[in-house]
Amino acid sequence: MNKVEFNNIKITGGFWKERQDLIRNVTAKAVYDRFYDTGRIDAFKFDKKSEIKPHIFWDSDVAKWMEGVAYLIQEKSEPQLEAIVENLIALIEKNQDDCGYFNIFFTVVEPQNRFVNRDCHELYCAGHLMEAAVAYYYATGKRKFLDLMCKYADYIEKRFKIDKDAKFVTPGHQEIELALVKMYEATGEKRYLELSKFFIDERGKKSEFKYDWCKESYHQSHIPVREQKEAVGHAVRATYLYCAMADLALRYNDKDLQSACETIFEDIVNHKMYITGGIGSSRAGEAFTIPYDLPNLIAYTESCAAIGLILFCHRMLLLTNDVKYSHVIERALYNGFLSSFSLDGKSFFYCNPLEVLPSLKKRDGELTEKTINMPITERVEVFECSCCPPNIVRFVPSVANYLYTYDQNAIYVHQFMESTASINGVTIEQKTSYPLNGKVEITVKGKNTRLCVRIPEYVEIYQGENADGYAIFDLKDGDTVALDFEMKPQLIEANPLVTFDSGKVALMRGPMVYCLEEVDNGKNLRDIRIDKNTEFSEFIDTSLNALCIEANAYRRKPTEKLYSKLSNERINIKAKFIPYHTFANRGESEMTVWFLAE
Amino acid sequence: MNKVEFNNIKITGGFWKERQDLIRNVTAKAVYDRFYDTGRIDAFKFDKKSEIKPHIFWDSDVAKWMEGVAYLIQEKSEPQLEAIVENLIALIEKNQDDCGYFNIFFTVVEPQNRFVNRDCHELYCAGHLMEAAVAYYYATGKRKFLDLMCKYADYIEKRFKIDKDAKFVTPGHQEIELALVKMYEATGEKRYLELSKFFIDERGKKSEFKYDWCKESYHQSHIPVREQKEAVGHAVRATYLYCAMADLALRYNDKDLQSACETIFEDIVNHKMYITGGIGSSRAGEAFTIPYDLPNLIAYTESCAAIGLILFCHRMLLLTNDVKYSHVIERALYNGFLSSFSLDGKSFFYCNPLEVLPSLKKRDGELTEKTINMPITERVEVFECSCCPPNIVRFVPSVANYLYTYDQNAIYVHQFMESTASINGVTIEQKTSYPLNGKVEITVKGKNTRLCVRIPEYVEIYQGENADGYAIFDLKDGDTVALDFEMKPQLIEANPLVTFDSGKVALMRGPMVYCLEEVDNGKNLRDIRIDKNTEFSEFIDTSLNALCIEANAYRRKPTEKLYSKLSNERINIKAKFIPYHTFANRGESEMTVWFLAE
Repeated sequence: MNKVEFNNIKITGGFWKERQDLIRNVTAKAVYDRFYDTGRIDAFKFDKKSEIKPHIFWDSDVAKWMEGVAYLIQEKSEPQLEAIVENLIALIEKNQDDCGYFNIFFTVVEPQNRFVNRDCHELYCAGHLMEAAVAYYYATGKRKFLDLMCKYADYIEKRFKIDKDAKFVTPGHQEIELALVKMYEATGEKRYLELSKFFIDERGKKSEFKYDWCKESYHQSHIPVREQKEAVGHAVRATYLYCAMADLALRYNDKDLQSACETIFEDIVNHKMYITGGIGSSRAGEAFTIPYDLPNLIAYTESCAAIGLILFCHRMLLLTNDVKYSHVIERALYNGFLSSFSLDGKSFFYCNPLEVLPSLKKRDGELTEKTINMPITERVEVFECSCCPPNIVRFVPSVANYLYTYDQNAIYVHQFMESTASINGVTIEQKTSYPLNGKVEITVKGKNTRLCVRIPEYVEIYQGENADGYAIFDLKDGDTVALDFEMKPQLIEANPLVTFDSGKVALMRGPMVYCLEEVDNGKNLRDIRIDKNTEFSEFIDTSLNALCIEANAYRRKPTEKLYSKLSNERINIKAKFIPYHTFANRGESEMTVWFLAE
Repeated sequence: MNKVEFNNIKITGGFWKERQDLIRNVTAKAVYDRFYDTGRIDAFKFDKKSEIKPHIFWDSDVAKWMEGVAYLIQEKSEPQLEAIVENLIALIEKNQDDCGYFNIFFTVVEPQNRFVNRDCHELYCAGHLMEAAVAYYYATGKRKFLDLMCKYADYIEKRFKIDKDAKFVTPGHQEIELALVKMYEATGEKRYLELSKFFIDERGKKSEFKYDWCKESYHQSHIPVREQKEAVGHAVRATYLYCAMADLALRYNDKDLQSACETIFEDIVNHKMYITGGIGSSRAGEAFTIPYDLPNLIAYTESCAAIGLILFCHRMLLLTNDVKYSHVIERALYNGFLSSFSLDGKSFFYCNPLEVLPSLKKRDGELTEKTINMPITERVEVFECSCCPPNIVRFVPSVANYLYTYDQNAIYVHQFMESTASINGVTIEQKTSYPLNGKVEITVKGKNTRLCVRIPEYVEIYQGENADGYAIFDLKDGDTVALDFEMKPQLIEANPLVTFDSGKVALMRGPMVYCLEEVDNGKNLRDIRIDKNTEFSEFIDTSLNALCIEANAYRRKPTEKLYSKLSNERINIKAKFIPYHTFANRGESEMTVWFLAE
């Protein structure tokens, strides 16, 4: 199945245009400013006398931001941002070693330790620089950055694959594997694809990680990748690995790799994924944990892991065209990913919890040892490890990547965004207010086309031809098909084995997960019980610019006593639900996705 | 109100006789054996060449055990145990400094650091030795141990109150304050009472704790004790402090002290006490935390804190004779305290959680940093900090302390145990199978007596004369009154502000809290919903030697899907409830006190 890259699609209005404009007009500059403040930009000057010591992952933070800028300027010129990128590229050229090596920390701080410590993010940084270089080449046609990164890739190939004199075999933090596939596609140089395959093939073959503090499953290096059946360890490392595995499965027609990816995907979506599409529930190792272990209050669910899951699903979609991958993309897109940045585009979550109880921050307030490590309750502008903000900057401008696939027989519509696309000689126009409602008009121009439209997961009954989850339309040139997916509030329950959601329900409407916030509903949200038979009413909250939902609900009566005989007395209330992704935009507030029902 | 000490009461049968026999026949020796194995006993030899380095709190572990033995031999001779105690006393005499100072660690390991570090448990160890000495004097009439401790108390008075040349003013871990009150009562030496008052009066007057890792509220030293209104900090330190405050309030008629104790008690029982009577919910600092913060899975609820709460309530009872204190004593006695030791008497809990989910131990299994610090799931024979086991050894033999109070007008019956007591010239006999049922026959012999019997908290309607929670009976010499408190299973809910119990109920029958265990009900107890209108059936489980309860309940259907539309489909099941205190006696097992109801 062929992909349709975002540069062939223009988001022309609606929900995602608003977000793309926000990233372009606010977020890109906001992230840059904080990176500048923290020394990340000047670090590219390689000033050994600087008082600010670069971190081992700073190259990658800035590289992701550069990649995001490339995606922005691919659509529309941004001279100020492009000048910054050009300047950074000049510094990269100036400070790259003659051999091709480029890394800030391991040139400025510890030049003696290059390719010594597997866990020091060198190849991870290299991978993100390569992704940025490829993106900038596509956006501008300028080859310099790409050439510099080819030189670096060649050097990495020499040290790791040919001379084998690096002190480790495979990266501690995966990323370069998928980047090398992009390098291969941009340059046609098959050695890059083979170097990616080398890293994938060697991974987990023999023990190569010696630290005490974690096991090799943290890096998905516990067994060879083709034998892996469960999603384990650090969730971002994991999804980036799975992306490369799927990339290589496609390009080498490697059925063992594909099968491993499919099994791991099922493990994630059946056992280890929050209703929001968030993954990696444990703060320890930022990691996947045991099946059904999905605590809400301490959900780790890193923003980068939500992105990683979408990247992985997209590659699986290209391999199989199975709607289930686009279902998960949609879930993560509108919930676990979108929650990662504020409505004003300036601040970010690293963790995206499904419940916030600010009072609990005080529980161990007197003492430094925390019993529970709680995620932060409001978004901030920059993190010490600030991988997520630039990941958002590169993700949103390229979000149209997930809209379509095609082959000689049909064009497949996976997501719904007001847009115009040019695919294989056909122009496809989507008119829609999605996800405000489920109405989508799709017009095909250029030639007669079979259009296969994914029926969203939340649609209970679809009237019409349905093949493997796609609605099928054979359209003539100029034809328009009008779809109307019913979007009504639905109460959802988790598998009985998800102990943290026992006795609770969540509210979804279309792809959106909803939540309760203290600012609308008062404190102690855990006592609110929705009336299972409530009529829902929908309305637009203009301050959140979002469709909100009101429902009949109950609270118990306040009492002085700590324990009393079970009572059925209730106070009738109206509960207001807002889209999960809009939480924490109105100050610190209790929040919950899962709530009682009776 | 006058106290009736346990040596005036003989537990003659039933529930508590079984436990007293267990402590006498099994636990006392089992705790001694583990203390011997770990070097705690030989440490009293003060062998500087020993390979085993004594801990700073070992004196107190053994002292509590000695106190327990004293209570055992007060009732019935135990030559073997008494010989061990005699030997320990001989070692104490031999190794006590001429000045009176006695501490193993600060003689063998760091003699240069005596009375230097407030947080090193020196005065805490001294206090437990004094309690043991008083108990042994009462039990045997032998004065040697008491005299040695008088010498030590005199030395402490000199250093802390007269010369004021110790490096701190008040103890980091309270205990000596209440012990000095006992020393005063045993010797008549008012200086000991005044030294206790000195420590209480000075506490919190000025900052004297310099560590970073905790604030002064950890030791209840943040403000002067008479100004304290909330239970804060380390729960055992807190309750031992409150005991001494209540002791002094009584003996000095100090209304400010009494008022502080009353306010703190209300804070505990209205905001910070588990349904089991467990207190101190946070592992960080083994401490009280914010109101209503009562997580079940990570409940810290140290066994010693349950004992501390009972000791405090007993003193408050002597001050006020208010039934509410005996209500809490009964709650803690049959639940949070009793759970601390196994049915075979050999192993112990330090923490007494209200929920056990063994699978969660694996959630961070790959990594050393734990996201959640979970209590152990099965009792063990000894801890590195093994304060709880000997506390149990001294508590159970003296449990009759909590049965009665009296004044010139009446005798007050607070707890129900098959027993014979001699109070103020009256013999009182209780015939009862309590807590198996609520039938209690009380016979008075010796003279006409007004008997005031506490009506338990769980009794909904008491037919008869009820004054301030007491049933009043004016009995003639030889009269018997037969009470029958209705004990039926009751579903209890927590205050809506206890977020961790939202939507859940607990089952109590009489004073006993019940729980579900995996061994009876299968895994995933969180999915079990009791039928709110169930008929309960009661039966004796002979393996647990306990009255258990069966109820109609539901589970949801198993499903492969992680999230699905809310369904009302249910599987009918029978749920078996066992008394909370009997949990974890049949191997590692899920357990929960709070469960769903519908």
